[in-house]
Amino acid sequence: MYNTGVPARGDHDARRRDVSEAVWRVLATRGFGGLTLRAVAAELGASTGLLTHYFPNKKALVTYALDVADERTASRRVREVQVEGLAALRSALMDVLPLTPDSAAMNRIWVSSWDGALADPELVVREKNRYQDWRERLRSHVAAAVERGELPASSDVDGVVATVAAFTHGLVVQALFDPERFPAVRQTEILDAFLMSLSGC
Amino acid sequence: MYNTGVPARGDHDARRRDVSEAVWRVLATRGFGGLTLRAVAAELGASTGLLTHYFPNKKALVTYALDVADERTASRRVREVQVEGLAALRSALMDVLPLTPDSAAMNRIWVSSWDGALADPELVVREKNRYQDWRERLRSHVAAAVERGELPASSDVDGVVATVAAFTHGLVVQALFDPERFPAVRQTEILDAFLMSLSGC
Repeated sequence: MYNTGVPARGDHDARRRDVSEAVWRVLATRGFGGLTLRAVAAELGASTGLLTHYFPNKKALVTYALDVADERTASRRVREVQVEGLAALRSALMDVLPLTPDSAAMNRIWVSSWDGALADPELVVREKNRYQDWRERLRSHVAAAVERGELPASSDVDGVVATVAAFTHGLVVQALFDPERFPAVRQTEILDAFLMSLSGC
Repeated sequence: MYNTGVPARGDHDARRRDVSEAVWRVLATRGFGGLTLRAVAAELGASTGLLTHYFPNKKALVTYALDVADERTASRRVREVQVEGLAALRSALMDVLPLTPDSAAMNRIWVSSWDGALADPELVVREKNRYQDWRERLRSHVAAAVERGELPASSDVDGVVATVAAFTHGLVVQALFDPERFPAVRQTEILDAFLMSLSGC
């Protein structure tokens, strides 16, 4: 009885889900700095040799991990909000802030990805594009808020978009390092005061 | 002729400077993810064995690298500004933003330190305290700005401090990944519009 090494399609998909889950657990506990074939193999209860088949080198593993993180991030954005303008902007920023343990885990993984990303020209482009996609999504809310008179008509829309993205990620990092000082209710207060100041009230 | 292995004091200090310089160069090009004894030894033109004497494990090397980064960051803050209140706050934030290649290198190193820091309870505390020290320094400017009537009297001072720190680090990250979109002049425009909105104008 020989194993041909070519699993049936169903096995392949199931195995991929297992690998994704193992990669995610490694990222959630150790970050990208702790992402190694050995760590993923241990999570998976598999041999490092098997994983070498999937990931011939570290870069392949990191790229795969970023794909997993992208998928999980996108799947968090499915809920449609029934609000527009400034309220929609607030909702979009609340979605990013680490207000729950799940969101804190997600953020911790993204923040930890920046080290390796800054060291690799291809990953710099990938992260630059992710930022640009995020700003595009925020831009529609900012533009609508200006149109609705919720933000000053004189606003430099791209500047406001960069400002709200900056504020949000910067608060993410502070909250990750100091969750006692920045529990969900405090993050929300700070966000609301920030949006109020943008609106000129 | 035996080398006793105990260098004269002057040699020791010179060697320490060399090691610091080599660690810094590795961080600047590869980040904390690329910080290994082998990489530092190569920069130093020394053997990995010699470095094992200084750094018995990876944690010792990372801790030393954080000390070097702290020293270099502190040495950037020597210039005294002759302004107060909102202008002093602006100056303090300009000092952090990656407006020059040197400052971009410094920021890149700090951002890259977050991956390993989040994975190590001791380093979480270290970074939490660094944030708190930074916010304390910013707090004096924010409080003075409120006192001078440059920021609203109703301001939640700690909230404003967290907001300006968040804005600044979030803009740092966006600028590191997309320096074409965020050259120094654009960062400064965005900062000034942000400070204007805080002041209620």
